[in-house]
Amino acid sequence: MALLYPDRLFPADARGRDLARALFDSVRDLPILSPHGHTDPVWFAQNAPFTNPAALFVTPDHYVFRMLYSQGVALESLGISPLQGASSVDPRDIWQRFAANYHVFRGTPTRLWIDHSLQEVFGVDQTLSAETAGEIYDQIDRCLILPEFRPRSLFDRFNIDVLATTEGALDPLQHHAKIAASDWSGRVITTYRPDTLIDPDCPAFRENLRELAEITRCDTTCWRGYLDAHRMRRQVFRDHGATATDHGHPSARTANLSVTECETLFDAVTQGSFTPEQAELFRAQMLTEMAKMSLDDGMVMQIHPGSRRNHASDIFARFGADKGFDIPGRTDYVSALQPLLDVAGHDPAFTLIVFTLDESAYGRELAPLAGVYPALKLGPAWWFFDSPDGMRRFRECTTETAGFYNTVGFNDDTRAFLSIPARHDVARRVDCAFLASLVTSGRLHEAEAFELALDLTITLAKRAYRL
Amino acid sequence: MALLYPDRLFPADARGRDLARALFDSVRDLPILSPHGHTDPVWFAQNAPFTNPAALFVTPDHYVFRMLYSQGVALESLGISPLQGASSVDPRDIWQRFAANYHVFRGTPTRLWIDHSLQEVFGVDQTLSAETAGEIYDQIDRCLILPEFRPRSLFDRFNIDVLATTEGALDPLQHHAKIAASDWSGRVITTYRPDTLIDPDCPAFRENLRELAEITRCDTTCWRGYLDAHRMRRQVFRDHGATATDHGHPSARTANLSVTECETLFDAVTQGSFTPEQAELFRAQMLTEMAKMSLDDGMVMQIHPGSRRNHASDIFARFGADKGFDIPGRTDYVSALQPLLDVAGHDPAFTLIVFTLDESAYGRELAPLAGVYPALKLGPAWWFFDSPDGMRRFRECTTETAGFYNTVGFNDDTRAFLSIPARHDVARRVDCAFLASLVTSGRLHEAEAFELALDLTITLAKRAYRL
Amino acid sequence: MALLYPDRLFPADARGRDLARALFDSVRDLPILSPHGHTDPVWFAQNAPFTNPAALFVTPDHYVFRMLYSQGVALESLGISPLQGASSVDPRDIWQRFAANYHVFRGTPTRLWIDHSLQEVFGVDQTLSAETAGEIYDQIDRCLILPEFRPRSLFDRFNIDVLATTEGALDPLQHHAKIAASDWSGRVITTYRPDTLIDPDCPAFRENLRELAEITRCDTTCWRGYLDAHRMRRQVFRDHGATATDHGHPSARTANLSVTECETLFDAVTQGSFTPEQAELFRAQMLTEMAKMSLDDGMVMQIHPGSRRNHASDIFARFGADKGFDIPGRTDYVSALQPLLDVAGHDPAFTLIVFTLDESAYGRELAPLAGVYPALKLGPAWWFFDSPDGMRRFRECTTETAGFYNTVGFNDDTRAFLSIPARHDVARRVDCAFLASLVTSGRLHEAEAFELALDLTITLAKRAYRL
Repeated sequence: MALLYPDRLFPADARGRDLARALFDSVRDLPILSPHGHTDPVWFAQNAPFTNPAALFVTPDHYVFRMLYSQGVALESLGISPLQGASSVDPRDIWQRFAANYHVFRGTPTRLWIDHSLQEVFGVDQTLSAETAGEIYDQIDRCLILPEFRPRSLFDRFNIDVLATTEGALDPLQHHAKIAASDWSGRVITTYRPDTLIDPDCPAFRENLRELAEITRCDTTCWRGYLDAHRMRRQVFRDHGATATDHGHPSARTANLSVTECETLFDAVTQGSFTPEQAELFRAQMLTEMAKMSLDDGMVMQIHPGSRRNHASDIFARFGADKGFDIPGRTDYVSALQPLLDVAGHDPAFTLIVFTLDESAYGRELAPLAGVYPALKLGPAWWFFDSPDGMRRFRECTTETAGFYNTVGFNDDTRAFLSIPARHDVARRVDCAFLASLVTSGRLHEAEAFELALDLTITLAKRAYRL
Repeated sequence: MALLYPDRLFPADARGRDLARALFDSVRDLPILSPHGHTDPVWFAQNAPFTNPAALFVTPDHYVFRMLYSQGVALESLGISPLQGASSVDPRDIWQRFAANYHVFRGTPTRLWIDHSLQEVFGVDQTLSAETAGEIYDQIDRCLILPEFRPRSLFDRFNIDVLATTEGALDPLQHHAKIAASDWSGRVITTYRPDTLIDPDCPAFRENLRELAEITRCDTTCWRGYLDAHRMRRQVFRDHGATATDHGHPSARTANLSVTECETLFDAVTQGSFTPEQAELFRAQMLTEMAKMSLDDGMVMQIHPGSRRNHASDIFARFGADKGFDIPGRTDYVSALQPLLDVAGHDPAFTLIVFTLDESAYGRELAPLAGVYPALKLGPAWWFFDSPDGMRRFRECTTETAGFYNTVGFNDDTRAFLSIPARHDVARRVDCAFLASLVTSGRLHEAEAFELALDLTITLAKRAYRL
Repeated sequence: MALLYPDRLFPADARGRDLARALFDSVRDLPILSPHGHTDPVWFAQNAPFTNPAALFVTPDHYVFRMLYSQGVALESLGISPLQGASSVDPRDIWQRFAANYHVFRGTPTRLWIDHSLQEVFGVDQTLSAETAGEIYDQIDRCLILPEFRPRSLFDRFNIDVLATTEGALDPLQHHAKIAASDWSGRVITTYRPDTLIDPDCPAFRENLRELAEITRCDTTCWRGYLDAHRMRRQVFRDHGATATDHGHPSARTANLSVTECETLFDAVTQGSFTPEQAELFRAQMLTEMAKMSLDDGMVMQIHPGSRRNHASDIFARFGADKGFDIPGRTDYVSALQPLLDVAGHDPAFTLIVFTLDESAYGRELAPLAGVYPALKLGPAWWFFDSPDGMRRFRECTTETAGFYNTVGFNDDTRAFLSIPARHDVARRVDCAFLASLVTSGRLHEAEAFELALDLTITLAKRAYRL
């Protein structure tokens, strides 16, 4: 039995399904552009084998372990180590636990992605369950030691044209350097993510500024030197392939203060005694500073706002960040982005890509803004909405106001390397289904749909991310 | 002519329709679990005949009279009595008025429910209208005097396995006692609803606390005694079958104060001079106290937040509460629930079921929260969203992030006894249609859809409500 | 090749499509009621030919130029004049620029509307593009000089029964007078739009009050005289056919102050020194005053809240208002409308039509409010949501709670005269598709769907707007 239904995610009516299939056939084998994600560059630098199925599919994937935790499975039992003391669970036990609970993923994109990886990458043809767990574990395990399952081989097999990772602004980027120096032709580029140098609420903020000073030899105790240090690091990142910056902020707030106000604010937040409002205002001002630097150096700017991080105090205390407890909240864009857009939003040479976790903003705020500001583009459906229904709602709620050409193609945004082809497969299918439905409802000509299928798969991402 | 189309609410495409029908056939005759509702236990205690069609369908049903009022029909003319003076409208006149306006319900779930009751319970086969009103009135009236149309007989005929009513915390529960002592085997259980003992803004709050003291012999003038009194009443409710508590609060706000802070706050709100913020904080703290008691006594906890009650001052002054003017508002869950979840959210033995009237929270807040906290489950589409499109949006916006297994099956939540089978019919059909669409779009295997149809109808409700 | 697909916007399944087509056939040739819009009455007063294709389709249409601007096309290059200095671009160049970028409108309603106008009004049968631009320009240009393409002829050809324009409260209404005095039978009525007399934040507010005094000979320096002046102007507007008022406010906030409070507030806002809160409160109070005047004079009241006007400072400074930078924001209705509804919401003789740019309010706030208050009706999907998916969401999110009979039919709300039949065509199709889907899913009988198609096209608009 095949895990995957060949016409999955296409419309239910025959005409729509046939057209969606034809559209998908025209783009299914095109190379993957992955301009935003969180895979680990060390995989491609060292090209060591992945260790075991649990370490590949379960322990590092927050989509997987958060759902299991919600059903009463302890994080430790999934191989997730507490900050104090390490987890030492047998990977076979982790896998068995995952398999026994695989039914809880029914209806989720995780299920689609993992079935896709199991079938397409490892040739698995039976549904994962308590009964099949052992056999499938062995099947994957046998593959992982083979050369064709090493990271670089999979990268080539996945037909990835370019893969962007994301590194903190202080990262030495040695893995990217090693990849570049190697004889492997895969294009793995970095992305400039300076959040921990920008967020005064980050516990290591002041320490990070000292480290920034050491690396750049700029005087990061003053506003001007601090900005210069950013400029230098952005240049270093560009030298390692980066075409974009990325900013994960609690809100989308931006500001446009005078230099004097900035200097005063900088002194306040760096001397360690500041109000929450000052911290928020500093982050806001820094988004505008990053936009101004982009006007100079041409880097694309991405804002990922709206996640309330580390919602569970106990989990954060015991396990640290990124353990499934980042919960979205209401996010305002209209007043929040105005100061930045006043400064940089009218320049067609600048590209600001905005994402959301608050779908009510698609039609109300984001599509109207992207439908008029030349610099502003909409990032694809993100995180909890990187899913068939999430993507469909994104298109339904933004296209009529912003069109297709103010969007930027797909981001897989993943930490799970094997999910990359699976996620692009889903995105291409959902887009083709949407285009087919526009044709069958008389809103688009068929030839235009084929053009758009190519644009949504390749052209828009290349253009937006300067690839 | 049949009022009801056999394939109603199924997908439009043939494959989806056929599969939805097969799924529905597998669950249509399963018993009804009704773990949350507002029918009157006196019906089953006394088993007296229902009096007339208007008293059965119109006067007590806020879905019905609010829509008629919106079209200019006076409440008095529908048999609704003002607080001062009683309404004395002939039930035939009420019925005629309802029938003459029946077209205004087109497209609403009320229309589906009433057509279902008319056809399935009373054998009516023509659409209600000014012309057919008299004949249908007579047809129903003739039934109501028959023994097989008494409440207990209908309960059995409806194949209700368990029916939960909702009583205020001070209720003597004599009707439940009488049912239990009777030779009738129907299972009618109560639910602990302590709002009027918890909300300092309730006009009778202080009087209610005095009454609570009398009933429990606890000292409800101090925090500790007040909590003890709740514990005792919860035990009494459990003795009358309750497995759950229910909390209808203006917001979902919770708090986690120290005992000293609680004592001070309790003194403030019980001595009659307090700020709106103190009232809100007290309600917030009490939700956490209820969660802690649930950790001890195993009761399931339900929160129904977000209704702005009694929006029309004049109607409230003349007719009192629950007269159709409870209007939803924006509701925050992410920061609101955090204090309670910090205390009790990680315990898989505790179940907290949360509902919403703010659909924008489904995908943004509720599914992400329920998709990670072991204790948190999502209640079904509620009130204004207990409808085909409302249920569909609930599934579409929550399943991809929270899955099916963090939901709890269906609640009919009704005051209208005859609507119970009608509402479960709608819910089962909509769920089967959704499952069928997942199968036809390749997101679920057919065998899994049959398992899920059973789970959504029976398993999840039984498990969540400890039935 | 036809630009338009005959079955456009109908359901994908055969049964739904056939029924939608039959429903649409029953209403497609019915006259157009346009009770709310922004066409220029001078067109019908003077009946001069439209000048050229660019002036007809591009320069005045904010839907068109905002999308082009978002793709980097300068406003000046589209014939839009800065406040300082006029644009003098050749209309052929504007048209060529528009045509070369026509693909960016794929998936938008603008594309549907313009294709409709090109095909149905001018007989164009090829898609607009850089290659076809010149030929199509010539084809339109040849038409525009013909008598049958003058405004009055098109009005008759479009089968418009009544067209409402919108004029500021100080407008002399000379064009309407001229139309009325002419031998042409077209019914063009005005609408009372007093925003610039009501909004203290309007730069010309005080100057406008002085002008109001001159026109009405009322003492607009005092509250009582100011209200009298409004009453007189409303009468003048009624004498020019107006049946409605229209209010475009930043929020839906209303107030119900005492006369003394009103007098004090009026003095504050008219003497030029007031807080933002006072300005907001004055606007709020004036909505209630307008409702009270409607109780007296029978005018229908429309509230269009929620647009954050002139988001881009630079565009506003250089080009003025209405240049595509009005962006929606979150809008509250529940608490905002309560004061007004307390005063006037229960009177079935009064009609208050409310619109929104915040779709999250449809199901949460607006449908529940309209589903119970006799005076309150829901305006159709507005502005950014005047589109196939926008209209579908409007019906899906409001019908189950408010029904169809608390809505008011369609508004085209357009400044683009040629888009009127195109927009009504879309609205009728989308409504028929929605009705067909209710029938095929067993929620409505077929005969009822035909009644509703007529009601949504004609009856509800006539009744709501007193036409």
